[in-house]
Amino acid sequence: MCQLLGMNCNTPTDIVFSFEGFRRRAGLTDSHSDGFGIAFFEGKGVRVFRDNRPASLSPIGDCVKQYDIKSLNVIAHIRKATQGSVDIENTHPFIREIWGENWVFAHNGNLHDLPDMTGRFCQPIGSTDSEAAFCYMAEFLKRRFSRKPVEQEIFAAVQEVTEFLAQHGTFNFILSNGEWMIGHCATNLHYLTRQAPFGKAQRIDDESVIDFNDYAKDGDKVTIIATFPLTKDEKWTKMLSGGFVFFKNGEKVKEIIGVEKAIIDDGTLGDRIVNDCS
Amino acid sequence: MCQLLGMNCNTPTDIVFSFEGFRRRAGLTDSHSDGFGIAFFEGKGVRVFRDNRPASLSPIGDCVKQYDIKSLNVIAHIRKATQGSVDIENTHPFIREIWGENWVFAHNGNLHDLPDMTGRFCQPIGSTDSEAAFCYMAEFLKRRFSRKPVEQEIFAAVQEVTEFLAQHGTFNFILSNGEWMIGHCATNLHYLTRQAPFGKAQRIDDESVIDFNDYAKDGDKVTIIATFPLTKDEKWTKMLSGGFVFFKNGEKVKEIIGVEKAIIDDGTLGDRIVNDCS
Repeated sequence: MCQLLGMNCNTPTDIVFSFEGFRRRAGLTDSHSDGFGIAFFEGKGVRVFRDNRPASLSPIGDCVKQYDIKSLNVIAHIRKATQGSVDIENTHPFIREIWGENWVFAHNGNLHDLPDMTGRFCQPIGSTDSEAAFCYMAEFLKRRFSRKPVEQEIFAAVQEVTEFLAQHGTFNFILSNGEWMIGHCATNLHYLTRQAPFGKAQRIDDESVIDFNDYAKDGDKVTIIATFPLTKDEKWTKMLSGGFVFFKNGEKVKEIIGVEKAIIDDGTLGDRIVNDCS
Repeated sequence: MCQLLGMNCNTPTDIVFSFEGFRRRAGLTDSHSDGFGIAFFEGKGVRVFRDNRPASLSPIGDCVKQYDIKSLNVIAHIRKATQGSVDIENTHPFIREIWGENWVFAHNGNLHDLPDMTGRFCQPIGSTDSEAAFCYMAEFLKRRFSRKPVEQEIFAAVQEVTEFLAQHGTFNFILSNGEWMIGHCATNLHYLTRQAPFGKAQRIDDESVIDFNDYAKDGDKVTIIATFPLTKDEKWTKMLSGGFVFFKNGEKVKEIIGVEKAIIDDGTLGDRIVNDCS
């Protein structure tokens, strides 16, 4: 499997504190060493860095750290390959143009028996299940709407195609068009929002401490989405299986809580629908 | 206008010598300071670096130099903006997926009254004429062939769509799918192929000298395509208006020589078709 990291904010923010902890999991504190990628939105544009070397050791990773890029939306991924070779074309995040926007997508999971995209308008370049699923999603959305619809319709359509794709396996993902960020949980996805009053946080992966008061100002809202929490003294929300969350300007716009995996009396693993709040 | 640089080889080669001269033209030896981009193919994948700062001063440019990436196909662009703001989304090279491949495109020129791509499958993200033209090309090719055809058909289709787009203004470009590289000249494009026996070359932009014998081995073939020559003691071929050239593995596969602009007896500027060789 892999790990995901996303950031959605209302003010351009650097992701160095989170990314430096996250990339230690690529060879130092965990074994997600099969390449990494990180995409920064800058307006409608995307600056993307990818390497097939482990993020913790990559000079490209060092460049990201030094460059101190500030962005409203960032998606990063460290890979532990399940399908597809350890090559650049199989390195997340994947990017496709949809309705004249860059859409950036990173996946954690494993999907099987996806529809064949040969001969379709959106075709995968590499050999991962992840890119194939994203291409299916892109083609689905473009065929459903030839021009960008309102957000409510986008979210509903993304949910619909996700429900279809999730039938093919484990489908945790983070998706952004540079305005909003969507997280979908199949097995593991957590989020938190940092806003005033700001406090300190200690990274799980190397004990490093930050005081956000030194960096943030009143009114700033910064949401972090990650496969597993990155700090030990902040309150992370663990998403449930099938959960969807939509952030914009660092704020939660909508959430579908999803299904809690529960141990049923007979010892089997059952599903319990929690609720749907928006 | 802008300047273009492309490299097509039969062995993974670093482009640092050429790129270091080229990027001096972004603020030091010339005024192409409105951002830059460079894309390196690695197999079917692409590693791309973009900055809206001048290439000569950019830390991203320094990172490219330090990282010493070797590639069979590279396309770089330094921008002097004519249409579109100095933002990442307007920074060449542009990338689109066509038939399950990354296609990388950089343009030098100015196009007007291009077909409106609103509502089409391939839409521009930024506001440049260049990206709009590339989207038109991508949609044209995908609609003509749902699966990748043989190279001869690809080249013929690219020529056909280029003839249409070139009616809209000045259309110098370099295009690659990671296997081959196409150069099209409207006003300025030059190329040369380095192969045994290798010699020395001196960069035009800073007098720096390289001896390719120290880096290349017998059998290596490295073609460089550039808006203007980068070295002063090598024989660059100046392409003619309407000229097309197709390289693969560092070798010229096909060339359409194009049209030489000639002064006609009556003093007007006329076109003289030179020939068509393949």
